[in-house]
Amino acid sequence: MDLYFGNVNADGKIVLEDDEFRHLKVVRTNIGDKIKITDGNGNLFIAAISEINKHNYVATIETTLVEKISGPTLHLAIAPTKNIDRIEWLVEKCVELGINKFSFIQCRHSERKDVKTDRLKRIAISAIKQSGKSTLPLINEMISFNNFIQSELEEQRLICAMEAENDKHIKQLLKPGKNTVILIGPEGDFHQEEIRSAKDAGFLSTSLGPERLRTETAAMAACVYFNFNKHGV
Amino acid sequence: MDLYFGNVNADGKIVLEDDEFRHLKVVRTNIGDKIKITDGNGNLFIAAISEINKHNYVATIETTLVEKISGPTLHLAIAPTKNIDRIEWLVEKCVELGINKFSFIQCRHSERKDVKTDRLKRIAISAIKQSGKSTLPLINEMISFNNFIQSELEEQRLICAMEAENDKHIKQLLKPGKNTVILIGPEGDFHQEEIRSAKDAGFLSTSLGPERLRTETAAMAACVYFNFNKHGV
Repeated sequence: MDLYFGNVNADGKIVLEDDEFRHLKVVRTNIGDKIKITDGNGNLFIAAISEINKHNYVATIETTLVEKISGPTLHLAIAPTKNIDRIEWLVEKCVELGINKFSFIQCRHSERKDVKTDRLKRIAISAIKQSGKSTLPLINEMISFNNFIQSELEEQRLICAMEAENDKHIKQLLKPGKNTVILIGPEGDFHQEEIRSAKDAGFLSTSLGPERLRTETAAMAACVYFNFNKHGV
Repeated sequence: MDLYFGNVNADGKIVLEDDEFRHLKVVRTNIGDKIKITDGNGNLFIAAISEINKHNYVATIETTLVEKISGPTLHLAIAPTKNIDRIEWLVEKCVELGINKFSFIQCRHSERKDVKTDRLKRIAISAIKQSGKSTLPLINEMISFNNFIQSELEEQRLICAMEAENDKHIKQLLKPGKNTVILIGPEGDFHQEEIRSAKDAGFLSTSLGPERLRTETAAMAACVYFNFNKHGV
């Protein structure tokens, strides 16, 4: 059964439009056919098509399954790359791996000043459908580095700076079982003052190893390390 | 200093052609200019431009630095995805992370029957230049699953099957310090008989966790896990 994305309306029904509408049409869905739908908020619905209209299909919910995510959460905060394809790719991969929140950060050395989160949300929706999840990660609009580190953040805070080669490896610092935020810098690395401010805000400076990684590779590696370690050994 | 890719000829000089030639031209390189060149075999040369020709530049080696890679090696063997972009992306990421060898495997459920390794080698060259490495991983031509598992392989052998949810997680099985080969299956997973044959050939069946990962995401996650663990804790 294919997985669709849609929100429950005031009548308790789900209207499937746009991409979902087109896909339902392509696969020749009929009245009464059962489909799976997620709202991205942890609900997975088994629903039956009850109306076929010119621009949408309406589905009536028959069963609701609630996805309970256990374990600590991961919030990845990154300075987006100049080439947005790399961020789009990262969003897809991190959604598959089960990230909870993305933030985009404007750093001193950032090469990109804006990010279209609408497009990233569509990619995240496609990735949760692909990987059979029901919870869409939160994708925050871009904010400045300073506003970000002063905001309300997770208990465990790490900043991966390229100049941090002498810092402890993330595997020595990451404590299992804790909600975590990991900051990944721009291609030109963080400014020294940014690293200092982050440390003042409770971030530990850490290294992802001796390899010189692109921003998106570092971010994905951090996500894998977090998964590796989140429940302890 | 930019990093270029080239091979030493019989005269002990390096002829820079094609992409390297074009890039040297764009940055207006002159006779006597110093550049860094790697041959992908672990050698990093500091060389001076000694000839500028219509279709190539010639560089004379002044210093050679040999990159010694310590620690266990990683060989990733994958059934390539239908969409080759995903494999190209994977090659770039795994080169950054420091993989040693790729093999492409024809499985029963493979959706792709051929892989153009020439193009992947160009991507790998670009990635070693980007990440400042001097050793190009080996990229093997596609072979059948059965021929692959019967070939001479690394001591530690793991097969990541999707149906392996009840298998031990890779972090419980990966032993540090051992040369390792990890097999990642096609989108339709390995055939039961393939898993059986792999076990007979000394592979341990393992899981990358509960997430449903795409082939290339699984392969990259396996690569990060290997790095995480290769030197022990």
